[in-house]
Amino acid sequence: MNRTTPLLVGSLLLMAGACSADELRDRANSIFKPIPEKITEVRGQKISDEQAILGHKLWFDPRLSRSHIISCNTCHNLSLGGGDNVTTSIGHGWQKGPRNSPTVLNAVLNAAQFWDGRAKDLQEQAKGPVQASVEMNNTPDRVVTTLKSIPEYVEEFQKAFPKDKDPVSFDNMAYALEAFEISLTTPNSPFDRFLKGEDKALDAEQKKGLALFMDAGCIACHNGVNVGGQGYFPFGLIKRPGADVLPEGDKGRFAVTNTASDEYVFRAAPLRNVALTPPYFHSGEVWDLKEAVAIMGNSQLGRDLKDDEVTAITAFLHSLTGDQPQVAYPVLPASTHSTPKPE
Amino acid sequence: MNRTTPLLVGSLLLMAGACSADELRDRANSIFKPIPEKITEVRGQKISDEQAILGHKLWFDPRLSRSHIISCNTCHNLSLGGGDNVTTSIGHGWQKGPRNSPTVLNAVLNAAQFWDGRAKDLQEQAKGPVQASVEMNNTPDRVVTTLKSIPEYVEEFQKAFPKDKDPVSFDNMAYALEAFEISLTTPNSPFDRFLKGEDKALDAEQKKGLALFMDAGCIACHNGVNVGGQGYFPFGLIKRPGADVLPEGDKGRFAVTNTASDEYVFRAAPLRNVALTPPYFHSGEVWDLKEAVAIMGNSQLGRDLKDDEVTAITAFLHSLTGDQPQVAYPVLPASTHSTPKPE
Repeated sequence: MNRTTPLLVGSLLLMAGACSADELRDRANSIFKPIPEKITEVRGQKISDEQAILGHKLWFDPRLSRSHIISCNTCHNLSLGGGDNVTTSIGHGWQKGPRNSPTVLNAVLNAAQFWDGRAKDLQEQAKGPVQASVEMNNTPDRVVTTLKSIPEYVEEFQKAFPKDKDPVSFDNMAYALEAFEISLTTPNSPFDRFLKGEDKALDAEQKKGLALFMDAGCIACHNGVNVGGQGYFPFGLIKRPGADVLPEGDKGRFAVTNTASDEYVFRAAPLRNVALTPPYFHSGEVWDLKEAVAIMGNSQLGRDLKDDEVTAITAFLHSLTGDQPQVAYPVLPASTHSTPKPE
Repeated sequence: MNRTTPLLVGSLLLMAGACSADELRDRANSIFKPIPEKITEVRGQKISDEQAILGHKLWFDPRLSRSHIISCNTCHNLSLGGGDNVTTSIGHGWQKGPRNSPTVLNAVLNAAQFWDGRAKDLQEQAKGPVQASVEMNNTPDRVVTTLKSIPEYVEEFQKAFPKDKDPVSFDNMAYALEAFEISLTTPNSPFDRFLKGEDKALDAEQKKGLALFMDAGCIACHNGVNVGGQGYFPFGLIKRPGADVLPEGDKGRFAVTNTASDEYVFRAAPLRNVALTPPYFHSGEVWDLKEAVAIMGNSQLGRDLKDDEVTAITAFLHSLTGDQPQVAYPVLPASTHSTPKPE
């Protein structure tokens, strides 16, 4: 058996090599989907310009945090692939968060938010870090008091939520953030151009990697438009990685469902722009994408991927980097005397 | 004498009221200057587009800090008037800096940089916070290693400094930052429009405040294009404020010159956009601009300004808010395996 597996992989590689680009594409199109050019709706509701413009300001406003120095963008940095490129995020009082910051890019296309899927959508998600003691360390009341103390914000909330009696609310803050975040998609990656018919968008190595990615079984978890982000799977399905990569104290989705079978279960990481978002895994302990691929082969597929296989899959993963959002750095309305002071 | 002063002020106010807008403007133009529309040179040298574009990226790049989460923009936030709107800045390890963050807006027009003028220009200034242990906590070597580990940065430094043998240097990083910062001016404030001939750019209260600002003696320190930022003066010239506002441990320019007469001497704060940059003074202990004006009257002029005088001067100071820079949030080149890890 130990000898059969490499032979089988060898045959698959030969097959992949022999496949025409059309065959490879057809198969890939049955598993993946290109990132849409533009998303304009949230849960069937059309986003208004006013909501998106307000959300853009709130996204960059550090006054949503107790200290007035941490914004959404601090840990989901749009300059750096929508994450923060540190092991786990640093928040209020320089506390380290428990998990690596997931990218906000294309997050609207995930089935649920956070590593354990505990928020069903981005509106619900947005309320988390604002309140988390190790992140922005704020309270809904204090956020609303802050926003209501700034006349321009009051006016913008009124325009964004014209039917609401009390438009400046924590819920509407989160909705506006979501309205901005749906614009943070990254279409036009080499992989998506290949899916749409451009043969040369992927080089030979990336095509080999794509074929391997499908053949080796990576697609069991990493599929769909976000190449992941759709379902929940145990980390260490076949072989549990060391405690450095999978810390024992973090039982993943178990904390959400309280179900024994959800111990060490996490949402399959969406792999769009993965080359931009080291370090990897919820622990953020692996900096090298090749190493991450090798660990996945081992822990999830029970396979010691060969060097050239790891290299090819990694080359394919690099093809998932799309056009990064072009965003203005907003000028924010000034605080007033009644704005709560930073703490 | 106690009775004469208010009477004198009363007469001056009557005079100011009686002045035509032209007379007020002529006098103001002899003391102040509008912010230029655009600055393109540094110390007689024309800035290239490549230098400014590189500086724009470096400005927002948190990898200039040891932690990889603090950028220049963290404490000189272009969304918030170019400062950080907290008492004193929070840096590496959540350490609090010793002084309030001065705005970067129009900083190129100051005679020297920092509250104590210890850097002669923005290039020299830029090297300070990167290395300060309580700020970005980095070293020149580590910064250069970081930048050299990112091929796109190497290429951009080569284009920005085409004559240099070793273009990726700490000096050139600072020069590129300066090249970006000279674009961070705020022309077109109501005050500047008044200076240029637009009578109605200031309302009656602001004109009264401008006249008072000149008559009361504020202009002894706060003059020129930046309404300050040109010279050094003792804080507490006439009457020393309390230790809450003027902490005894911070002797200001004395630390630069080691001259007894420079104890508690600071660079006169440039007052452009001052309404956007609370809290005030190097200690950052005063949140209310009116209170700051009253303290200045008392400590620097030996005068208890009346409420309506403080109100008028404050209204004038609000007219110093100009057009805020419109800046894109840049997409930064990705780190590589050889990029030093955050610490």
